Amino acid sequence: MTSATEFKQAPHKLLVIPGPIEVADEVLYANAHPSMSHVSPDFIPVFGDCLRMTRSVVAEVVLSTEGQPFLISGSGTLGWDQARHLPTFRRNLTRPGENALVLHSGYFGDSFTECLETYGAKVDQVKAEIGAAVSQEAIESALKSKKYRLLTFTHVDTSTAVLSDAKAIAETVKRVSPETLVILDGVCSVASEELRMDAWGIDVVLTASQKGLGVPPGLSILVASPRAIKVFESRTVPVASYYASWKKWLPIMKAYESGKPAYFATPPTNLIYAYHASLSQIMKKAPSLEERFELHRAASKQIKDTAAALGLKQLALDPAFAANGMTALYFPEGLSAGDVLPKLGAKGIIAAGGLHAEIKDKYFRLGHMGITAVDGQRGDIQTVTTALKEVFAAK
Amino acid sequence: MTSATEFKQAPHKLLVIPGPIEVADEVLYANAHPSMSHVSPDFIPVFGDCLRMTRSVVAEVVLSTEGQPFLISGSGTLGWDQARHLPTFRRNLTRPGENALVLHSGYFGDSFTECLETYGAKVDQVKAEIGAAVSQEAIESALKSKKYRLLTFTHVDTSTAVLSDAKAIAETVKRVSPETLVILDGVCSVASEELRMDAWGIDVVLTASQKGLGVPPGLSILVASPRAIKVFESRTVPVASYYASWKKWLPIMKAYESGKPAYFATPPTNLIYAYHASLSQIMKKAPSLEERFELHRAASKQIKDTAAALGLKQLALDPAFAANGMTALYFPEGLSAGDVLPKLGAKGIIAAGGLHAEIKDKYFRLGHMGITAVDGQRGDIQTVTTALKEVFAAK
Repeated sequence: MTSATEFKQAPHKLLVIPGPIEVADEVLYANAHPSMSHVSPDFIPVFGDCLRMTRSVVAEVVLSTEGQPFLISGSGTLGWDQARHLPTFRRNLTRPGENALVLHSGYFGDSFTECLETYGAKVDQVKAEIGAAVSQEAIESALKSKKYRLLTFTHVDTSTAVLSDAKAIAETVKRVSPETLVILDGVCSVASEELRMDAWGIDVVLTASQKGLGVPPGLSILVASPRAIKVFESRTVPVASYYASWKKWLPIMKAYESGKPAYFATPPTNLIYAYHASLSQIMKKAPSLEERFELHRAASKQIKDTAAALGLKQLALDPAFAANGMTALYFPEGLSAGDVLPKLGAKGIIAAGGLHAEIKDKYFRLGHMGITAVDGQRGDIQTVTTALKEVFAAK
Repeated sequence: MTSATEFKQAPHKLLVIPGPIEVADEVLYANAHPSMSHVSPDFIPVFGDCLRMTRSVVAEVVLSTEGQPFLISGSGTLGWDQARHLPTFRRNLTRPGENALVLHSGYFGDSFTECLETYGAKVDQVKAEIGAAVSQEAIESALKSKKYRLLTFTHVDTSTAVLSDAKAIAETVKRVSPETLVILDGVCSVASEELRMDAWGIDVVLTASQKGLGVPPGLSILVASPRAIKVFESRTVPVASYYASWKKWLPIMKAYESGKPAYFATPPTNLIYAYHASLSQIMKKAPSLEERFELHRAASKQIKDTAAALGLKQLALDPAFAANGMTALYFPEGLSAGDVLPKLGAKGIIAAGGLHAEIKDKYFRLGHMGITAVDGQRGDIQTVTTALKEVFAAK
């Protein structure tokens, strides 16, 4: 057999797109775990630990939150589907659905809007200019204009690398419209950006495995606050959902956390082992979560400073809007993705092109999350800054 | 680095539940592939190959079917969610939804029914007695009594190990109600039981990665016939689905198959590599698909003959109803899961308890799919029959 310490993944170019990210050897080794029964006494506590650790990572261990994690086979997008449990959308066109407010700081604001509208919500968007997050004034004004059942925002929009101020948004909602539920899309922020679900008063955090959490893609991860669960449990209109149904999944998650097996649909057992390996790494005291966020900020600063010194302009219009787990940079005049990405590839790093429809061909994106930011011995950040210098100094 | 030929999974008890099944070292190694960009030129042809090979395995390569595969991050249950694309269900209670006929040969008939009802279908079940499949006479009679938009059946019901005669069912439908769509739940049959989607006229085959296909769980696999796609494309009522939406996924699947990247939600890249490795194994000429089915039949016979010699009675009331990829056996008088499963565990094999609500505690299940059935050198079938003999001869 190949032992955990022996296993070394195949050589490859450094993957620094904003997800999937580089995955540690021990996490990939866990993903190659021998096939296991999803109801076996060996697997149940692993799933249970994953639920407990999810609560800790997302909602801060010290607060002993009562948030309810959902770990379901699927991509991050499946988390949006789960948001339908909260409003009582009415699909009969003569009676409008409940109102949802979507803060738009990039591509994923439009996608989340489309998802909510698919399920009958009446969605209003407050749209920031490209490179900015929505201001608290604009949020306050929208919240005063209409009663919203829920507000959603993308903590870090992967298309623009814009960071929204989750704490301030939650404060504004609590002050102006306390009954509005706050849903945070943390696909590109959880475990990379500071986030305190309980302390800040976020009702739902949804994310995925393949970004800051450092696991291959395929696990939809969501934590619902006790208030969100209460809203779900008190609804009288059934949710027209089967695969994404909390009614189905809630007893499953509770069973596994209490050490008992339960069956609705087969969990992605190998990914659960991989997630367990990565969360165990993340939960280790050194680096602590505080240190972890600080290491992401430091890595981000190194990359952003290098880019600035090379004359590369960030999409983020202000440092306050700049994510710490990724960077989006405009191409210099005369250069395009067709020039830059292959050149970075030749220097051994895989970066991503643009994604925001309006400026898709004008910029590129770098991810610096997980082990790339946290494990200094890998030298990933140095590899990225060296490649940037070689490609852009030589242009 | 660890090479593909060097990698050996950790020692473990032989997993012979009816899924997840034993996974080959080379497939697990592929599941530990270095993290890859889902839009990279290296990954795109791998996804494209998986789509092409899915069509071949499920629908027979020689017929050059035009079936449309969907590979989506999720469990097999997500395939049921996709069935909602076919009828124009009306959720307004004053106008009933279209009719669906569910053939019930175990637990999963009830689940599929519940899924369809969640989306507004009017479902009738034709229920076989435990251990039997629904008769062609009963199907014909139901089809003559009402107009059904679709008929669903579980090719092998994992709860009972009952095999339904897919070819005969499709023939009956074509003869009696040719406009009714035939949906086959092949979660526990694809790549283990003979299935010819084109030749038999099945409109949708849905399955999952962790059974006959020999991959870790987490990939929902579905193939829709040209007729099913046409029905979907001609519907005028929008489908209230986001994550499972064919409208979203169809262009993605077409793009990857034609060698271009596209984005809706992040595909489970590592599982795609694992699926590619397993399909490549399956597509190898030796054993051919014919030989593969024959090896499953032979493995099944060995286990069923051994069980019979030990006085163990199958749930299947007739050999015609007996699956070839799994076996369900009643406990002998006086024994229960609490006695038998640990004893089998002590002999090195992991079997599964009962699942059918009415007789849950009265039987156990053995899976013999994939490499356990096909790769004789492993000696898995011998291990299982030896364990059965040791446990039940000594009772």
